[in-house]
Amino acid sequence: MSKKINEQEVAELLGNADNILLLAHQYPDGDTIGSNFALCLALQTLGKTVRVHCGDVIPDKYDYLYEDVPQPSFEPDFICAVDVADVKLLGDKTAQLYGDKIDLCIDHHATNTGYAAHTCVDSTCGAAAMVVYRIIGLLGVSLTPAIARCIYTGIATDTGCFKYSNAGALAHRIAADCIDVGIPYEMINRINFDTKSRARIELERMALDGMRFYHDGRVAVMTITNEMVEKSHAGENDLEGLPPIPRQIEGVWVGITLRQKADGNYKISVRTGTHADAADICGVLGGGGHDRAAGCAVDGTLEEATAAILAAVEQTVARITTG
Amino acid sequence: MSKKINEQEVAELLGNADNILLLAHQYPDGDTIGSNFALCLALQTLGKTVRVHCGDVIPDKYDYLYEDVPQPSFEPDFICAVDVADVKLLGDKTAQLYGDKIDLCIDHHATNTGYAAHTCVDSTCGAAAMVVYRIIGLLGVSLTPAIARCIYTGIATDTGCFKYSNAGALAHRIAADCIDVGIPYEMINRINFDTKSRARIELERMALDGMRFYHDGRVAVMTITNEMVEKSHAGENDLEGLPPIPRQIEGVWVGITLRQKADGNYKISVRTGTHADAADICGVLGGGGHDRAAGCAVDGTLEEATAAILAAVEQTVARITTG
Repeated sequence: MSKKINEQEVAELLGNADNILLLAHQYPDGDTIGSNFALCLALQTLGKTVRVHCGDVIPDKYDYLYEDVPQPSFEPDFICAVDVADVKLLGDKTAQLYGDKIDLCIDHHATNTGYAAHTCVDSTCGAAAMVVYRIIGLLGVSLTPAIARCIYTGIATDTGCFKYSNAGALAHRIAADCIDVGIPYEMINRINFDTKSRARIELERMALDGMRFYHDGRVAVMTITNEMVEKSHAGENDLEGLPPIPRQIEGVWVGITLRQKADGNYKISVRTGTHADAADICGVLGGGGHDRAAGCAVDGTLEEATAAILAAVEQTVARITTG
Repeated sequence: MSKKINEQEVAELLGNADNILLLAHQYPDGDTIGSNFALCLALQTLGKTVRVHCGDVIPDKYDYLYEDVPQPSFEPDFICAVDVADVKLLGDKTAQLYGDKIDLCIDHHATNTGYAAHTCVDSTCGAAAMVVYRIIGLLGVSLTPAIARCIYTGIATDTGCFKYSNAGALAHRIAADCIDVGIPYEMINRINFDTKSRARIELERMALDGMRFYHDGRVAVMTITNEMVEKSHAGENDLEGLPPIPRQIEGVWVGITLRQKADGNYKISVRTGTHADAADICGVLGGGGHDRAAGCAVDGTLEEATAAILAAVEQTVARITTG
């Protein structure tokens, strides 16, 4: 059973620890990398021996976050996971090595499974970096530009550059504190929000080519087949952030993305506005999720999968079939 | 000669005025609409008779900013332009009607021409809405949700949702104050940043189809012809924000957009990273601009225009021709 502790208690635990191994989640994003390296830098400032471990290769675009942060080798005496909601998210190898020895977890996911000896979760924070920011303050470490660019990156990437509902007042205020000490936020945002690989551009082009509209443009269907992924040379990273695209088109109530799986069948993502409930639509096909974003899976050809999800839309969304 | 005044003096001028006509610039954006209606609401709270005039039709997407704001008819005794850098930007008809009678201008453009009797410009502000926010405070009016959503919209739209270099600490702190009083910022951002017309999607698809790469992918060229605009049914609004696209592709040093003009010749936009100077490139063809964004024009066919701008790149960018 994990003990729930507050940020002051976290600061005390970390203050008394040394030879600290910090753990990021697999498929690393800006928040797990940013919040881990911010904490790493703060603890190193206190003279402690600390490094960050991630079970996956960290994408090159995050180089600016840690290229100057020493990563010494040592036998850990204290293990702390940051922004890791479930021990499985560490990746198989890391979970096997450290999964049952994690002393502390700092997180912002309400779904945290409580796998660590001590857990500190604030699910009102849009990013783990916001929790880490306050812990760094409680550790008595001042915000440096190197720490600030990690915190800012975590907040910006987890809130879609302050666009989503989790970009509350506190997210903006901490971002302002980070900017005050001097960080290249324009460069950070360009790297994270205004850079696409050629493979991604090619994949988007093909996906837009095949976009289909139904019900007077209220339903848009985009398809990503294995052939398109191969042809465009898209990697796993290039496939992120595609499901919102159909719904972003003016007049679209229901945006549907069909993504072919390795076995040839289809995974379906549904995004809706206020006129339709995504969880209801996906529920018809045995899936689920939230009212604005949900998912399901359909076995069969592209035609069969498209027909199934369109039938689910017609069955659940009032007024969609009227002109 | 315009008299430069500070925000306290602006508050005093407005406090003593009544029957106030506020003016927005033509091709209205979120900042001119947001900052004008924020000020209108604040002055109405003080019991004054106020309305906002814009020489152009205001796009539907800004409806949420002012649908509940009374717009009475009256003969103006005091005229104040907000976010209008030059009297010409009011549009011909509005400039003729009011151009020589403007009592006050509140702005954030360093290039403000000083056409009003009194001018208050703070060019350190990323949005006119930030200047207006402070003036509203000096007027003694509290921030209401209706005022806050106008201010937030002005800041978010002028800073690319806090992405650009003008999204400094103050922009974030004012946004946080707006969020504190309760505004639907997620909806505001969805309307302004995550909504594209079908015509725009179609135009982007065609533009990506025709994207060409040169010099090992360091130069990307995108073309928008009149035929593409016609075919996609794109309007003037749908053509905004295209020039940054080629430069956003990973590995691209120079992003070029060729836009065909009504006469068949080409307007060229150039965007660069740190490896190339956009103004130098465009300078070769008689154009100019800033180091990261510049423009020029070339008469001739698409092939001739492409060859001319590629030659200008080769002539000015060191190492671009080496593998």
